[in-house]
Amino acid sequence: MTAIDAYIESHRQAFVDDLAELLHIPSVSADSRHAGDTRRAAEWMVSRFKQLGLATELVETAGHPLVVAESPPVPGKPVALVYGHYDVQPPDPLGEWTTPPFEPSIRHGNIYARGATDDKGQMLTHVKSVEAWIKSGQPLPLQVKFLIEGEEEVGSVHLEPFVAENRQRLACDCVVISDCGQFAPGVPAITYGLRGIAYYELKLIGPRQDLHSGTFGGGVTNPAGVLVSMLAALKDADGRIQIPGFYDDVIPLSVAERQQFRDLPFDEADFKRQLVVDGLSGEAGHTTLERRWARPTCDINGLTSGYQGEGAKTVLPARASAKFSFRLVPNQDPAKISSALKTFLEVRVPPGIRMELVDHHGAPGVVVRLDSPYIRAAAAAIEAGFGSPPVYIREGGSIPIVNTFARELDADVLLLGWGQNDDNTHSPNEKFSLADYQRGILASAYLWQELAKLPA
Amino acid sequence: MTAIDAYIESHRQAFVDDLAELLHIPSVSADSRHAGDTRRAAEWMVSRFKQLGLATELVETAGHPLVVAESPPVPGKPVALVYGHYDVQPPDPLGEWTTPPFEPSIRHGNIYARGATDDKGQMLTHVKSVEAWIKSGQPLPLQVKFLIEGEEEVGSVHLEPFVAENRQRLACDCVVISDCGQFAPGVPAITYGLRGIAYYELKLIGPRQDLHSGTFGGGVTNPAGVLVSMLAALKDADGRIQIPGFYDDVIPLSVAERQQFRDLPFDEADFKRQLVVDGLSGEAGHTTLERRWARPTCDINGLTSGYQGEGAKTVLPARASAKFSFRLVPNQDPAKISSALKTFLEVRVPPGIRMELVDHHGAPGVVVRLDSPYIRAAAAAIEAGFGSPPVYIREGGSIPIVNTFARELDADVLLLGWGQNDDNTHSPNEKFSLADYQRGILASAYLWQELAKLPA
Repeated sequence: MTAIDAYIESHRQAFVDDLAELLHIPSVSADSRHAGDTRRAAEWMVSRFKQLGLATELVETAGHPLVVAESPPVPGKPVALVYGHYDVQPPDPLGEWTTPPFEPSIRHGNIYARGATDDKGQMLTHVKSVEAWIKSGQPLPLQVKFLIEGEEEVGSVHLEPFVAENRQRLACDCVVISDCGQFAPGVPAITYGLRGIAYYELKLIGPRQDLHSGTFGGGVTNPAGVLVSMLAALKDADGRIQIPGFYDDVIPLSVAERQQFRDLPFDEADFKRQLVVDGLSGEAGHTTLERRWARPTCDINGLTSGYQGEGAKTVLPARASAKFSFRLVPNQDPAKISSALKTFLEVRVPPGIRMELVDHHGAPGVVVRLDSPYIRAAAAAIEAGFGSPPVYIREGGSIPIVNTFARELDADVLLLGWGQNDDNTHSPNEKFSLADYQRGILASAYLWQELAKLPA
Repeated sequence: MTAIDAYIESHRQAFVDDLAELLHIPSVSADSRHAGDTRRAAEWMVSRFKQLGLATELVETAGHPLVVAESPPVPGKPVALVYGHYDVQPPDPLGEWTTPPFEPSIRHGNIYARGATDDKGQMLTHVKSVEAWIKSGQPLPLQVKFLIEGEEEVGSVHLEPFVAENRQRLACDCVVISDCGQFAPGVPAITYGLRGIAYYELKLIGPRQDLHSGTFGGGVTNPAGVLVSMLAALKDADGRIQIPGFYDDVIPLSVAERQQFRDLPFDEADFKRQLVVDGLSGEAGHTTLERRWARPTCDINGLTSGYQGEGAKTVLPARASAKFSFRLVPNQDPAKISSALKTFLEVRVPPGIRMELVDHHGAPGVVVRLDSPYIRAAAAAIEAGFGSPPVYIREGGSIPIVNTFARELDADVLLLGWGQNDDNTHSPNEKFSLADYQRGILASAYLWQELAKLPA
């Protein structure tokens, strides 16, 4: 690895310049005014892969194009598939940016721009590590495939069918995704678990129009009153979800995993300071990390009813609605939750109310086996790149495409995040540490070596 | 009364023409673009009172003017004060009117226009009855004072201080208000009770900004979740309010009054059909009329939190708020309710949430003694005007100015409504029955005679 290490060290500035070039392209997938820019980012990716001699294709979809590239097969060695995305979130609110979102600016060792960490910077570490191997004269020790999409920030709608229809082309032993974070500065991590999701909208319809709350109040069923009762009934005072059977498929956290969470350098006081809250709460008998990462939850995401303007209006609302979602842990089935929820709510509909339950989307949770050889390979690579071994963490959010990869490609997924919690993902002043960018490239270069030690 | 009856009968068309003239004036008090029109309506009232020879004054306020008029004192006889308002609600949504709101149109015996029933038509019955006495050559048998305001639809903000500062000038034995309704067509009514009100806005503040519900959900207190729990806790499954002491000052309905409610021709099936609901609910052990008129209640008037747009957004909201109000029955003190509510909510604030409770406004409920001579006089007048004796009803809404009159003038209040439940008050296609207009004028003319029989 000496030549590769040397290449990476000597190209530090060139890597930053190339990242800055990509960050200059406002590839905002949600904004049709940026459709041309989004395509330009895809074409930029294509040009980079071609410069490395990879077999590259810009794949048209009904939306923004996919970029697919691959290095030559290496018989007897595993195949790695890198997934990432070249599109970015909208930059609003623009006024809160210190420097413009598409004019990358370096301050205090960070590069500030929309997409810096999510996902252009993180994704590019794998392109640059492949470059380091190839340009320093070493053939890649295994086949690396790239699947880079332009619609991650708008729901990856065209990616899932593409994966299902191209299983042969995308066939691999593991999928590498760097679109998350380290545990803390100086504490690199492998994310081995994600929660699933089941998202609903509950609509309660009462009288044909808003009524005067004086003339009718007390005698006519108030949909907002029913809504709060139904939603409150979902949890008991201990934060336990009350839907019959909800916990049936939940595998309790092992003593070892709970200990592993406790061993992480998580500072609850600091966490509260960051959020500006005076305390935390959640399911009784569990720590904050357990509650966020590895226990199912129910959160209200939105409430709408009646008069929401200034001051007072004495209205008995005709309608009330809520958006709410469960985060699920592996082995819980979103479809089973939907059915149990429906029954739970239906028996609570009083006279005078009509209920509609919209099932928005569901995805199961995922846990990657920690005793996998791919995880061990990634750990060794991270230690080589970052100078410390990774900690093993889970993440409370959901990345539905991970389920697609696991299901369609039957591959282990390696979630190797180089970002930090304060990178302002989806917010103004998004940033990425240039030191983490460099360390990510190094870790990725070692990852190819470590994975190549494994049997195909 | 023969000459008066004859005058009223022969002036049927003239009364309608005069009402139409007033309805032509768009005196929308809430809309500053109509400030000139609103003043024009006040001046129109002044001209009518002057034509009757009443001592009349247009009283300027910091808002829209008051009109005060009075007939000569009649020694040894009681004094009646008529309260009404010349301002109207905004006519929106304009597109839903069959004919324009300020171009009065007569269809099927009703006059359609904004303000037809609320309150121009009802208020004018008392002006026309005074005209009938005076123009048919009979001096009024008692002194009648008029207090007509132009800010009823925007909170009567300048009326209350005027009443308090002009107790001598407004001194009277009873206040006559026709700004409500009959029980049903052909069933005239005297409203002898109003509920009070205590209106609040509850704001719960959680983390400093909306959070990702996956990454944080379960570990960070969700203000929307706390809001629904707090609001749901306000009532038990029987619809009983759970705030300690809430019912302490509630005087139970007497057996006689409950029987009186039951004797009213209230058709619950018809009521449900009107509202398009399949059932009703409320406090256990009470009928719909009891619940609406004579039992305290708590209704949510508005809910706001998190994501309210289309589709799904996985947000853990930073804030949640609700507007809600209690309707109170006489003898309940809004200030006492506020204090008990605050305690009730405060103990339910979990770690991570800051609570603000805004006390919007409160007014106690009112019940007029039914065994009063003024009520008996009004009943006789209504029977003379409408051909049937009135039923005695209560109303679930609140008219805060009624408390002001009772308190400042120490006078009985007679709530004599000529409207119907389907008059579309505050809605498009507001109407007033011309037959009820005519009957109201006749009943009012008889009211002066009946009241004059009482001692001063």
